[in-house]
Amino acid sequence: MSSKDHLKEAMVDISTDVEKLLNRLIPDVSGDEKQLFDAMRYVVFAGGKRLRPFLVVASSEMFGVDRSVAMRTAAAIECVHSYSLVHDDLPAMDDDELRRGKLTAHLEFDEATAILAGDGLQTLAFEILADEASHPDPRVRLELIRTLAQASGVHGMVGGQMIDLVAENKTLDLSGITRLQQMKTGALICYSAEAGAILGKADRHRRHLLYGYAKDLGLAFQIADDLLDHEGDATAMGKATGKDTERGKATFVAHLGPERARQQARILADQAIEHLQEFGEKAALLNSLAHYVIDRQN
Amino acid sequence: MSSKDHLKEAMVDISTDVEKLLNRLIPDVSGDEKQLFDAMRYVVFAGGKRLRPFLVVASSEMFGVDRSVAMRTAAAIECVHSYSLVHDDLPAMDDDELRRGKLTAHLEFDEATAILAGDGLQTLAFEILADEASHPDPRVRLELIRTLAQASGVHGMVGGQMIDLVAENKTLDLSGITRLQQMKTGALICYSAEAGAILGKADRHRRHLLYGYAKDLGLAFQIADDLLDHEGDATAMGKATGKDTERGKATFVAHLGPERARQQARILADQAIEHLQEFGEKAALLNSLAHYVIDRQN
Repeated sequence: MSSKDHLKEAMVDISTDVEKLLNRLIPDVSGDEKQLFDAMRYVVFAGGKRLRPFLVVASSEMFGVDRSVAMRTAAAIECVHSYSLVHDDLPAMDDDELRRGKLTAHLEFDEATAILAGDGLQTLAFEILADEASHPDPRVRLELIRTLAQASGVHGMVGGQMIDLVAENKTLDLSGITRLQQMKTGALICYSAEAGAILGKADRHRRHLLYGYAKDLGLAFQIADDLLDHEGDATAMGKATGKDTERGKATFVAHLGPERARQQARILADQAIEHLQEFGEKAALLNSLAHYVIDRQN
Repeated sequence: MSSKDHLKEAMVDISTDVEKLLNRLIPDVSGDEKQLFDAMRYVVFAGGKRLRPFLVVASSEMFGVDRSVAMRTAAAIECVHSYSLVHDDLPAMDDDELRRGKLTAHLEFDEATAILAGDGLQTLAFEILADEASHPDPRVRLELIRTLAQASGVHGMVGGQMIDLVAENKTLDLSGITRLQQMKTGALICYSAEAGAILGKADRHRRHLLYGYAKDLGLAFQIADDLLDHEGDATAMGKATGKDTERGKATFVAHLGPERARQQARILADQAIEHLQEFGEKAALLNSLAHYVIDRQN
Protein backbone atom coordinates (compact mmCIF):
# COMPACT_ATOMS: atom_id res chain seq x y z
CA MET A 1 0.00 0.00 0.00
CA SER A 2 1.33 3.45 -0.90
CA SER A 3 1.95 5.94 1.87
CA LYS A 4 -0.91 8.00 0.47
CA ASP A 5 -3.34 5.07 0.70
CA HIS A 6 -2.07 4.27 4.15
CA LEU A 7 -2.72 7.88 5.21
CA LYS A 8 -6.22 7.85 3.76
CA GLU A 9 -7.06 4.62 5.53
CA ALA A 10 -5.76 5.95 8.85
CA MET A 11 -7.70 9.20 8.41
CA VAL A 12 -10.94 7.32 7.79
CA ASP A 13 -10.33 5.02 10.78
CA ILE A 14 -9.61 7.87 13.17
CA SER A 15 -12.48 9.94 11.84
CA THR A 16 -14.88 7.01 12.35
CA ASP A 17 -13.64 6.37 15.88
CA VAL A 18 -13.77 9.98 17.01
CA GLU A 19 -17.30 10.31 15.66
CA LYS A 20 -18.37 7.21 17.58
CA LEU A 21 -16.99 8.72 20.75
CA LEU A 22 -18.55 12.13 20.08
CA ASN A 23 -21.86 10.37 19.52
CA ARG A 24 -21.63 8.98 23.05
CA LEU A 25 -20.44 12.27 24.55
CA ILE A 26 -23.20 14.35 22.90
CA PRO A 27 -26.21 12.04 23.02
CA ASP A 28 -29.47 12.48 21.23
CA VAL A 29 -31.73 13.56 24.11
CA SER A 30 -35.40 14.38 24.59
CA GLY A 31 -36.93 17.15 26.68
CA ASP A 32 -36.49 20.90 26.68
CA GLU A 33 -32.72 20.71 26.11
CA LYS A 34 -33.22 18.74 22.90
CA GLN A 35 -32.71 21.79 20.68
CA LEU A 36 -29.33 22.48 22.28
CA PHE A 37 -28.07 18.92 21.90
CA ASP A 38 -29.43 18.73 18.36
CA ALA A 39 -27.54 21.87 17.42
CA MET A 40 -24.32 20.63 19.02
CA ARG A 41 -24.66 17.34 17.13
CA TYR A 42 -25.47 19.20 13.92
CA VAL A 43 -22.25 21.19 14.21
CA VAL A 44 -20.04 18.32 15.32
CA PHE A 45 -21.35 15.79 12.80
CA ALA A 46 -21.24 18.09 9.78
CA GLY A 47 -18.39 16.07 8.34
CA GLY A 48 -14.95 17.55 7.91
CA LYS A 49 -11.56 15.95 7.58
CA ARG A 50 -10.99 15.55 11.33
CA LEU A 51 -7.46 16.83 10.84
CA ARG A 52 -7.02 17.65 14.53
CA PRO A 53 -8.14 14.25 15.85
CA PHE A 54 -5.79 12.69 13.30
CA LEU A 55 -2.88 14.77 14.62
CA VAL A 56 -3.67 13.78 18.22
CA VAL A 57 -3.87 10.07 17.47
CA ALA A 58 -0.92 9.91 15.05
CA SER A 59 1.34 11.84 17.42
CA SER A 60 0.14 9.81 20.43
CA GLU A 61 0.96 6.56 18.70
CA MET A 62 4.56 7.69 18.25
CA PHE A 63 4.80 7.52 22.04
CA GLY A 64 2.88 4.29 22.47
CA VAL A 65 -0.27 5.89 23.87
CA ASP A 66 -3.35 3.74 23.70
CA ARG A 67 -5.64 4.90 20.91
CA SER A 68 -8.77 4.79 23.08
CA VAL A 69 -7.08 7.17 25.54
CA ALA A 70 -5.87 9.55 22.82
CA MET A 71 -9.33 9.55 21.25
CA ARG A 72 -10.82 11.47 24.18
CA THR A 73 -8.38 14.33 23.74
CA ALA A 74 -9.13 14.19 20.02
CA ALA A 75 -12.85 14.51 20.77
CA ALA A 76 -12.25 17.43 23.13
CA ILE A 77 -10.28 19.30 20.47
CA GLU A 78 -12.96 18.61 17.90
CA CYS A 79 -15.50 20.16 20.30
CA VAL A 80 -13.37 23.31 20.53
CA HIS A 81 -12.86 23.41 16.77
CA SER A 82 -16.61 22.97 16.19
CA TYR A 83 -17.49 25.67 18.71
CA SER A 84 -15.17 28.08 16.90
CA LEU A 85 -16.80 27.28 13.55
CA VAL A 86 -20.36 27.81 14.75
CA HIS A 87 -19.46 31.13 16.38
CA ASP A 88 -17.38 32.26 13.36
CA ASP A 89 -20.31 31.62 11.03
CA LEU A 90 -22.69 33.86 13.02
CA PRO A 91 -24.15 36.93 11.26
CA ALA A 92 -22.18 39.24 13.57
CA MET A 93 -18.95 37.45 12.62
CA ASP A 94 -18.34 36.01 9.12
CA ASP A 95 -22.07 35.74 8.33
CA ASP A 96 -21.76 32.47 6.42
CA GLU A 97 -24.74 30.58 5.07
CA LEU A 98 -23.07 27.32 4.17
CA ARG A 99 -20.57 25.12 5.97
CA ARG A 100 -19.49 21.81 4.47
CA GLY A 101 -22.40 21.96 2.05
CA LYS A 102 -25.07 22.37 4.73
CA LEU A 103 -26.84 25.39 6.17
CA THR A 104 -24.86 26.95 9.00
CA ALA A 105 -26.27 26.26 12.46
CA HIS A 106 -27.81 29.69 13.02
CA LEU A 107 -29.87 29.18 9.83
CA GLU A 108 -30.75 25.54 10.50
CA PHE A 109 -31.74 26.42 14.09
CA ASP A 110 -31.53 30.06 15.17
CA GLU A 111 -28.83 32.45 16.32
CA ALA A 112 -29.43 32.01 20.04
CA THR A 113 -29.22 28.24 19.72
CA ALA A 114 -26.03 28.51 17.66
CA ILE A 115 -24.41 30.74 20.29
CA LEU A 116 -25.39 28.36 23.10
CA ALA A 117 -24.31 25.27 21.16
CA GLY A 118 -20.86 26.83 20.75
CA ASP A 119 -20.72 27.75 24.42
CA GLY A 120 -21.74 24.25 25.46
CA LEU A 121 -19.20 22.62 23.16
CA GLN A 122 -16.39 24.64 24.67
CA THR A 123 -17.43 23.62 28.19
CA LEU A 124 -17.73 19.99 27.13
CA ALA A 125 -14.14 19.97 25.87
CA PHE A 126 -12.80 20.80 29.33
CA GLU A 127 -15.20 18.39 30.99
CA ILE A 128 -13.93 15.57 28.75
CA LEU A 129 -10.28 16.31 29.56
CA ALA A 130 -10.86 16.56 33.31
CA ASP A 131 -12.28 13.03 33.37
CA GLU A 132 -10.02 10.21 34.53
CA ALA A 133 -10.66 8.27 31.32
CA SER A 134 -8.68 10.91 29.39
CA HIS A 135 -5.44 9.87 31.14
CA PRO A 136 -4.71 8.05 34.40
CA ASP A 137 -2.16 10.67 35.54
CA PRO A 138 -3.85 13.81 36.94
CA ARG A 139 -0.84 15.95 36.02
CA VAL A 140 -1.17 14.91 32.39
CA ARG A 141 -4.86 15.82 32.39
CA LEU A 142 -4.09 19.22 33.88
CA GLU A 143 -1.37 19.84 31.30
CA LEU A 144 -3.85 18.93 28.54
CA ILE A 145 -6.37 21.40 29.99
CA ARG A 146 -3.87 24.20 30.58
CA THR A 147 -2.38 23.92 27.10
CA LEU A 148 -5.79 23.68 25.41
CA ALA A 149 -6.94 26.81 27.24
CA GLN A 150 -3.84 28.67 26.11
CA ALA A 151 -4.16 27.51 22.51
CA SER A 152 -7.85 28.34 22.24
CA GLY A 153 -8.13 31.48 24.38
CA VAL A 154 -7.23 35.14 24.07
CA HIS A 155 -3.60 34.43 23.22
CA GLY A 156 -4.62 31.80 20.68
CA MET A 157 -7.76 31.05 18.69
CA VAL A 158 -10.11 33.67 20.19
CA GLY A 159 -7.42 36.36 20.01
CA GLY A 160 -6.72 35.46 16.39
CA GLN A 161 -10.39 35.73 15.52
CA MET A 162 -10.48 39.20 17.09
CA ILE A 163 -7.42 40.30 15.11
CA ASP A 164 -9.01 38.89 11.94
CA LEU A 165 -12.12 41.02 12.49
CA VAL A 166 -10.11 44.14 13.26
CA ALA A 167 -7.89 43.46 10.23
CA GLU A 168 -10.83 43.80 7.83
CA ASN A 169 -10.37 47.55 8.19
CA LYS A 170 -6.60 47.71 7.85
CA THR A 171 -3.67 46.25 5.93
CA LEU A 172 -1.59 43.57 7.58
CA ASP A 173 1.93 42.83 6.36
CA LEU A 174 3.17 39.27 5.90
CA SER A 175 4.31 38.91 9.50
CA GLY A 176 0.96 40.30 10.64
CA ILE A 177 -0.91 37.73 8.53
CA THR A 178 1.35 34.95 9.81
CA ARG A 179 0.75 35.94 13.44
CA LEU A 180 -3.01 36.16 12.83
CA GLN A 181 -3.15 32.71 11.27
CA GLN A 182 -0.84 31.20 13.86
CA MET A 183 -3.24 32.37 16.56
CA LYS A 184 -6.56 31.83 14.79
CA THR A 185 -6.01 28.34 13.39
CA GLY A 186 -2.36 27.44 14.04
CA ALA A 187 -2.46 27.33 17.83
CA LEU A 188 -5.12 24.60 17.96
CA ILE A 189 -3.32 22.58 15.27
CA CYS A 190 -0.07 22.87 17.25
CA TYR A 191 -1.89 21.76 20.37
CA SER A 192 -3.32 18.72 18.56
CA ALA A 193 0.19 17.47 17.72
CA GLU A 194 1.62 18.48 21.11
CA ALA A 195 -1.19 16.54 22.79
CA GLY A 196 0.44 13.29 21.69
CA ALA A 197 3.66 14.31 23.44
CA ILE A 198 1.73 15.38 26.56
CA LEU A 199 -0.25 12.13 26.67
CA GLY A 200 2.96 10.13 26.10
CA LYS A 201 4.88 12.10 28.75
CA ALA A 202 7.52 12.88 26.15
CA ASP A 203 10.45 15.11 27.11
CA ARG A 204 10.42 18.83 26.34
CA HIS A 205 12.64 18.38 23.26
CA ARG A 206 10.34 15.88 21.54
CA ARG A 207 7.25 17.88 22.47
CA HIS A 208 8.89 20.89 20.90
CA LEU A 209 9.63 18.98 17.67
CA LEU A 210 5.96 18.11 17.32
CA TYR A 211 5.02 21.69 17.99
CA GLY A 212 7.44 22.84 15.26
CA TYR A 213 6.06 20.27 12.83
CA ALA A 214 2.48 21.38 13.44
CA LYS A 215 3.33 25.06 13.25
CA ASP A 216 4.70 24.64 9.72
CA LEU A 217 1.93 22.21 8.81
CA GLY A 218 -0.74 24.60 10.04
CA LEU A 219 0.58 27.48 7.96
CA ALA A 220 0.88 25.23 4.88
CA PHE A 221 -2.70 24.11 5.51
CA GLN A 222 -3.88 27.71 5.79
CA ILE A 223 -2.16 28.74 2.57
CA ALA A 224 -3.70 25.76 0.79
CA ASP A 225 -7.05 26.85 2.19
CA ASP A 226 -6.55 30.39 0.90
CA LEU A 227 -5.64 28.98 -2.53
CA LEU A 228 -8.78 26.85 -2.57
CA ASP A 229 -10.86 29.86 -1.55
CA HIS A 230 -9.21 31.91 -4.26
CA GLU A 231 -9.53 29.43 -7.11
CA GLY A 232 -12.04 27.12 -5.65
CA ASP A 233 -15.21 25.60 -6.69
CA ALA A 234 -17.97 26.26 -4.16
CA THR A 235 -19.45 22.78 -4.67
CA ALA A 236 -16.22 20.96 -3.86
CA MET A 237 -15.56 23.21 -0.87
CA GLY A 238 -19.12 23.02 0.46
CA LYS A 239 -19.08 26.72 1.26
CA ALA A 240 -19.04 30.02 -0.55
CA THR A 241 -15.63 30.68 -2.11
CA GLY A 242 -13.92 33.93 -2.98
CA LYS A 243 -15.44 35.56 0.08
CA ASP A 244 -12.10 36.37 1.67
CA THR A 245 -10.95 38.23 -1.42
CA GLU A 246 -14.28 40.02 -1.66
CA ARG A 247 -14.00 41.19 1.96
CA GLY A 248 -10.43 42.32 1.43
CA LYS A 249 -9.36 39.88 4.13
CA ALA A 250 -5.66 39.61 4.79
CA THR A 251 -4.74 36.24 3.24
CA PHE A 252 -1.45 34.77 2.11
CA VAL A 253 -2.69 34.56 -1.47
CA ALA A 254 -3.75 38.21 -1.51
CA HIS A 255 -0.31 39.14 -0.26
CA LEU A 256 2.00 36.79 -2.14
CA GLY A 257 -0.01 36.00 -5.25
CA PRO A 258 -1.10 32.40 -5.97
CA GLU A 259 2.20 31.22 -7.44
CA ARG A 260 4.44 32.31 -4.60
CA ALA A 261 1.83 31.19 -2.07
CA ARG A 262 1.85 27.69 -3.58
CA GLN A 263 5.65 27.64 -3.42
CA GLN A 264 5.60 28.80 0.19
CA ALA A 265 3.15 26.05 1.16
CA ARG A 266 5.50 23.46 -0.35
CA ILE A 267 8.51 24.86 1.55
CA LEU A 268 6.51 24.78 4.79
CA ALA A 269 5.43 21.16 4.23
CA ASP A 270 9.06 20.14 3.69
CA GLN A 271 10.11 22.05 6.79
CA ALA A 272 7.36 20.35 8.81
CA ILE A 273 8.74 16.94 7.85
CA GLU A 274 12.30 17.93 8.77
CA HIS A 275 11.26 18.49 12.40
CA LEU A 276 10.36 14.83 12.67
CA GLN A 277 13.54 13.30 11.21
CA GLU A 278 14.75 11.80 14.49
CA PHE A 279 11.50 9.86 14.87
CA GLY A 280 12.31 7.89 11.71
CA GLU A 281 9.62 5.51 10.47
CA LYS A 282 7.39 6.30 13.44
CA ALA A 283 6.63 9.66 11.84
CA ALA A 284 5.48 8.12 8.54
CA LEU A 285 1.82 9.10 8.94
CA LEU A 286 2.61 12.66 9.98
CA ASN A 287 5.01 12.96 7.04
CA SER A 288 2.35 11.78 4.59
CA LEU A 289 -0.06 14.27 6.11
CA ALA A 290 2.30 17.15 5.34
CA HIS A 291 2.20 16.19 1.65
CA TYR A 292 -1.55 15.72 1.75
CA VAL A 293 -2.46 19.12 3.15
CA ILE A 294 -0.90 20.98 0.24
CA ASP A 295 -2.32 18.68 -2.43
CA ARG A 296 -5.91 18.42 -1.18
CA GLN A 297 -8.75 19.60 -3.41
CA ASN A 298 -11.23 20.51 -0.67
CA MET B 1 -20.68 45.18 64.81
CA SER B 2 -24.02 43.68 63.74
CA SER B 3 -24.00 40.56 61.61
CA LYS B 4 -25.38 42.66 58.76
CA ASP B 5 -22.49 45.14 58.98
CA HIS B 6 -20.04 42.27 59.25
CA LEU B 7 -21.49 40.74 56.09
CA LYS B 8 -21.32 44.03 54.22
CA GLU B 9 -17.71 44.54 55.21
CA ALA B 10 -16.77 41.01 54.13
CA MET B 11 -18.59 41.44 50.81
CA VAL B 12 -16.71 44.65 50.09
CA ASP B 13 -13.35 43.08 51.06
CA ILE B 14 -13.87 40.02 48.88
CA SER B 15 -15.19 42.06 46.01
CA THR B 16 -12.13 44.35 46.17
CA ASP B 17 -9.73 41.41 46.29
CA VAL B 18 -11.31 39.47 43.43
CA GLU B 19 -11.28 42.60 41.28
CA LYS B 20 -7.58 43.13 42.00
CA LEU B 21 -6.89 39.58 40.90
CA LEU B 22 -9.08 39.85 37.80
CA ASN B 23 -7.21 43.03 36.92
CA ARG B 24 -3.98 41.03 36.85
CA LEU B 25 -5.54 38.09 35.00
CA ILE B 26 -7.11 40.28 32.29
CA PRO B 27 -4.53 42.99 31.74
CA ASP B 28 -4.96 46.21 29.82
CA VAL B 29 -2.99 45.39 26.65
CA SER B 30 -2.01 47.21 23.49
CA GLY B 31 -1.94 45.91 19.93
CA ASP B 32 -4.55 44.26 17.76
CA GLU B 33 -6.02 42.21 20.62
CA LYS B 34 -6.74 45.38 22.62
CA GLN B 35 -10.42 45.43 21.65
CA LEU B 36 -10.91 41.90 22.96
CA PHE B 37 -9.21 42.56 26.30
CA ASP B 38 -11.02 45.88 26.65
CA ALA B 39 -14.37 44.16 26.13
CA MET B 40 -13.51 41.41 28.62
CA ARG B 41 -12.50 44.04 31.17
CA TYR B 42 -15.64 46.05 30.44
CA VAL B 43 -17.82 43.03 31.19
CA VAL B 44 -15.90 41.83 34.22
CA PHE B 45 -15.49 45.26 35.83
CA ALA B 46 -19.08 46.37 35.36
CA GLY B 47 -19.67 46.15 39.10
CA GLY B 48 -22.07 43.65 40.56
CA LYS B 49 -22.33 42.19 44.01
CA ARG B 50 -19.71 39.47 43.46
CA LEU B 51 -22.07 37.00 45.14
CA ARG B 52 -20.26 33.99 43.69
CA PRO B 53 -16.76 35.04 44.80
CA PHE B 54 -18.22 35.72 48.23
CA LEU B 55 -19.65 32.20 48.37
CA VAL B 56 -16.31 30.67 47.35
CA VAL B 57 -14.31 32.59 49.92
CA ALA B 58 -16.80 32.31 52.79
CA SER B 59 -17.22 28.57 52.26
CA SER B 60 -13.45 28.07 51.84
CA GLU B 61 -12.73 29.82 55.11
CA MET B 62 -14.98 27.34 56.93
CA PHE B 63 -12.38 24.74 55.98
CA GLY B 64 -9.32 26.86 56.72
CA VAL B 65 -8.41 27.42 53.05
CA ASP B 66 -6.09 30.35 52.46
CA ARG B 67 -7.98 33.32 51.06
CA SER B 68 -5.42 33.96 48.30
CA VAL B 69 -5.90 30.38 47.07
CA ALA B 70 -9.70 30.55 47.18
CA MET B 71 -9.62 33.89 45.36
CA ARG B 72 -8.41 32.26 42.13
CA THR B 73 -11.41 29.92 42.03
CA ALA B 74 -13.58 32.94 42.81
CA ALA B 75 -12.06 34.80 39.84
CA ALA B 76 -12.60 31.81 37.56
CA ILE B 77 -16.28 31.62 38.50
CA GLU B 78 -16.68 35.36 37.99
CA CYS B 79 -15.24 34.88 34.47
CA VAL B 80 -17.87 32.22 33.74
CA HIS B 81 -20.65 34.35 35.23
CA SER B 82 -19.51 37.37 33.17
CA TYR B 83 -19.31 35.33 29.98
CA SER B 84 -22.88 34.15 30.53
CA LEU B 85 -24.09 37.74 31.03
CA VAL B 86 -22.46 39.12 27.89
CA HIS B 87 -23.84 36.27 25.78
CA ASP B 88 -27.31 36.51 27.40
CA ASP B 89 -27.50 40.22 26.59
CA LEU B 90 -26.86 39.69 22.86
CA PRO B 91 -29.59 40.73 20.40
CA ALA B 92 -30.22 37.09 19.47
CA MET B 93 -30.72 36.21 23.14
CA ASP B 94 -32.33 38.64 25.62
CA ASP B 95 -31.45 41.74 23.56
CA ASP B 96 -30.69 43.94 26.54
CA GLU B 97 -29.39 47.47 26.23
CA LEU B 98 -28.37 48.12 29.81
CA ARG B 99 -26.54 46.02 32.37
CA ARG B 100 -25.72 47.47 35.78
CA GLY B 101 -26.50 50.95 34.50
CA LYS B 102 -24.07 50.79 31.56
CA LEU B 103 -24.52 49.95 27.90
CA THR B 104 -24.29 46.22 27.29
CA ALA B 105 -21.02 45.10 25.67
CA HIS B 106 -22.42 44.54 22.19
CA LEU B 107 -23.55 48.19 22.15
CA GLU B 108 -20.41 49.61 23.78
CA PHE B 109 -18.24 47.54 21.35
CA ASP B 110 -19.99 45.43 18.73
CA GLU B 111 -21.69 42.05 18.60
CA ALA B 112 -18.68 40.13 17.28
CA THR B 113 -16.47 41.51 20.04
CA ALA B 114 -19.09 40.68 22.67
CA ILE B 115 -19.32 37.08 21.43
CA LEU B 116 -15.53 36.70 21.45
CA ALA B 117 -15.16 38.36 24.86
CA GLY B 118 -17.58 35.81 26.28
CA ASP B 119 -15.77 32.94 24.58
CA GLY B 120 -12.42 34.15 25.89
CA LEU B 121 -13.73 34.58 29.42
CA GLN B 122 -14.97 31.01 29.48
CA THR B 123 -11.57 29.71 28.33
CA LEU B 124 -9.78 31.88 30.89
CA ALA B 125 -11.81 30.35 33.71
CA PHE B 126 -10.47 26.89 32.95
CA GLU B 127 -6.95 28.20 32.41
CA ILE B 128 -7.03 29.83 35.85
CA LEU B 129 -8.17 26.63 37.56
CA ALA B 130 -5.61 24.43 35.78
CA ASP B 131 -2.77 26.56 37.16
CA GLU B 132 -0.86 25.28 40.18
CA ALA B 133 -1.54 28.50 42.06
CA SER B 134 -5.22 27.57 42.27
CA HIS B 135 -4.43 24.62 44.58
CA PRO B 136 -1.26 22.61 45.23
CA ASP B 137 -3.07 19.26 44.84
CA PRO B 138 -3.64 18.34 41.16
CA ARG B 139 -6.67 16.22 42.07
CA VAL B 140 -8.31 19.20 43.71
CA ARG B 141 -7.70 21.34 40.61
CA LEU B 142 -9.20 18.64 38.41
CA GLU B 143 -12.25 18.36 40.65
CA LEU B 144 -12.69 22.14 40.48
CA ILE B 145 -12.52 21.98 36.67
CA ARG B 146 -14.78 18.96 36.32
CA THR B 147 -17.44 20.38 38.63
CA LEU B 148 -17.31 23.84 37.03
CA ALA B 149 -17.76 22.29 33.59
CA GLN B 150 -20.78 20.35 34.81
CA ALA B 151 -22.33 23.35 36.52
CA SER B 152 -21.86 25.68 33.57
CA GLY B 153 -22.38 23.35 30.61
CA VAL B 154 -25.31 21.69 28.89
CA HIS B 155 -26.61 20.10 32.09
CA GLY B 156 -26.24 23.39 33.97
CA MET B 157 -26.07 27.03 32.97
CA VAL B 158 -26.02 26.68 29.17
CA GLY B 159 -28.79 24.07 29.25
CA GLY B 160 -30.87 26.34 31.49
CA GLN B 161 -30.44 29.24 29.12
CA MET B 162 -31.64 27.04 26.25
CA ILE B 163 -34.71 25.95 28.22
CA ASP B 164 -35.40 29.59 29.11
CA LEU B 165 -35.42 30.53 25.41
CA VAL B 166 -37.62 27.60 24.45
CA ALA B 167 -39.94 28.39 27.38
CA GLU B 168 -40.84 31.80 25.93
CA ASN B 169 -43.18 29.92 23.63
CA LYS B 170 -44.75 27.61 26.17
CA THR B 171 -46.07 27.45 29.72
CA LEU B 172 -43.88 25.93 32.40
CA ASP B 173 -45.37 24.69 35.65
CA LEU B 174 -43.74 25.42 39.00
CA SER B 175 -41.44 22.40 38.85
CA GLY B 176 -40.46 23.38 35.30
CA ILE B 177 -39.59 26.91 36.42
CA THR B 178 -37.64 25.55 39.38
CA ARG B 179 -35.64 23.19 37.16
CA LEU B 180 -34.95 25.99 34.67
CA GLN B 181 -33.69 28.33 37.38
CA GLN B 182 -31.69 25.61 39.10
CA MET B 183 -29.85 25.00 35.83
CA LYS B 184 -29.60 28.57 34.53
CA THR B 185 -28.41 30.35 37.66
CA GLY B 186 -28.59 27.83 40.51
CA ALA B 187 -25.93 25.41 39.31
CA LEU B 188 -23.15 28.02 39.29
CA ILE B 189 -24.25 29.33 42.69
CA CYS B 190 -24.16 25.78 44.06
CA TYR B 191 -20.72 25.28 42.56
CA SER B 192 -19.47 28.48 44.21
CA ALA B 193 -20.36 27.17 47.65
CA GLU B 194 -19.21 23.63 46.86
CA ALA B 195 -15.87 25.03 45.72
CA GLY B 196 -14.99 25.82 49.33
CA ALA B 197 -15.54 22.19 50.25
CA ILE B 198 -13.52 21.00 47.25
CA LEU B 199 -10.63 23.37 48.04
CA GLY B 200 -10.76 22.34 51.70
CA LYS B 201 -10.91 18.62 50.82
CA ALA B 202 -14.05 18.32 52.94
CA ASP B 203 -15.83 14.99 53.13
CA ARG B 204 -18.80 14.20 50.90
CA HIS B 205 -21.31 14.94 53.66
CA ARG B 206 -20.06 18.48 54.32
CA ARG B 207 -19.75 19.21 50.62
CA HIS B 208 -23.34 18.12 50.23
CA LEU B 209 -24.48 20.43 53.05
CA LEU B 210 -22.93 23.40 51.26
CA TYR B 211 -24.56 22.32 48.02
CA GLY B 212 -27.93 22.13 49.77
CA TYR B 213 -27.44 25.55 51.33
CA ALA B 214 -26.58 27.13 47.99
CA LYS B 215 -29.43 25.42 46.17
CA ASP B 216 -31.98 27.01 48.52
CA LEU B 217 -30.07 30.28 48.56
CA GLY B 218 -29.94 30.38 44.77
CA LEU B 219 -33.69 29.90 44.42
CA ALA B 220 -34.38 32.53 47.10
CA PHE B 221 -32.04 34.86 45.23
CA GLN B 222 -33.85 34.19 41.96
CA ILE B 223 -37.27 34.84 43.46
CA ALA B 224 -35.98 38.08 44.99
CA ASP B 225 -34.66 38.98 41.53
CA ASP B 226 -38.02 38.26 39.94
CA LEU B 227 -39.72 40.42 42.59
CA LEU B 228 -37.32 43.29 41.90
CA ASP B 229 -37.92 42.91 38.15
CA HIS B 230 -41.67 42.88 38.77
CA GLU B 231 -41.84 45.87 41.11
CA GLY B 232 -38.50 47.34 40.46
CA ASP B 233 -37.18 50.68 39.69
CA ALA B 234 -34.98 50.60 36.59
CA THR B 235 -32.56 53.12 38.09
CA ALA B 236 -31.86 51.10 41.21
CA MET B 237 -31.55 47.90 39.18
CA GLY B 238 -29.34 49.44 36.50
CA LYS B 239 -31.24 47.60 33.81
CA ALA B 240 -34.67 47.61 32.23
CA THR B 241 -37.28 46.14 34.57
CA GLY B 242 -40.57 44.46 33.83
CA LYS B 243 -39.06 42.85 30.72
CA ASP B 244 -39.60 39.32 31.96
CA THR B 245 -43.31 39.95 32.47
CA GLU B 246 -43.55 41.68 29.12
CA ARG B 247 -41.97 38.70 27.37
CA GLY B 248 -44.24 36.28 29.20
CA LYS B 249 -41.17 34.64 30.71
CA ALA B 250 -41.79 31.88 33.16
CA THR B 251 -40.91 33.46 36.52
CA PHE B 252 -41.79 32.56 40.08
CA VAL B 253 -43.65 35.82 40.52
CA ALA B 254 -45.75 35.28 37.40
CA HIS B 255 -46.64 31.85 38.70
CA LEU B 256 -47.12 32.40 42.43
CA GLY B 257 -48.04 36.07 42.60
CA PRO B 258 -45.78 38.51 44.50
CA GLU B 259 -47.08 37.72 47.98
CA ARG B 260 -46.61 33.97 47.84
CA ALA B 261 -43.32 34.42 46.02
CA ARG B 262 -42.02 36.61 48.85
CA GLN B 263 -43.16 34.02 51.38
CA GLN B 264 -41.47 31.27 49.41
CA ALA B 265 -38.16 33.19 49.30
CA ARG B 266 -38.27 33.55 53.07
CA ILE B 267 -38.90 29.84 53.56
CA LEU B 268 -35.99 29.01 51.24
CA ALA B 269 -33.62 31.36 53.07
CA ASP B 270 -34.50 29.70 56.39
CA GLN B 271 -34.03 26.28 54.83
CA ALA B 272 -30.65 27.33 53.47
CA ILE B 273 -29.48 28.25 56.96
CA GLU B 274 -30.69 24.95 58.41
CA HIS B 275 -28.28 23.02 56.18
CA LEU B 276 -25.36 24.71 57.91
CA GLN B 277 -26.38 24.11 61.54
CA GLU B 278 -23.59 21.66 62.28
CA PHE B 279 -20.97 24.23 61.26
CA GLY B 280 -22.06 26.47 64.13
CA GLU B 281 -20.46 29.91 64.32
CA LYS B 282 -18.24 29.15 61.31
CA ALA B 283 -21.30 29.54 59.09
CA ALA B 284 -22.12 33.03 60.40
CA LEU B 285 -21.29 34.85 57.13
CA LEU B 286 -23.21 32.38 54.99
CA ASN B 287 -26.18 32.64 57.34
CA SER B 288 -26.17 36.44 57.11
CA LEU B 289 -26.00 36.15 53.34
CA ALA B 290 -29.20 34.09 53.27
CA HIS B 291 -31.02 36.94 55.04
CA TYR B 292 -29.41 39.52 52.79
CA VAL B 293 -30.41 38.00 49.44
CA ILE B 294 -34.11 38.25 50.21
CA ASP B 295 -33.92 41.79 51.63
CA ARG B 296 -31.74 43.41 48.99
CA GLN B 297 -33.07 46.35 46.99
CA ASN B 298 -31.02 45.84 43.81
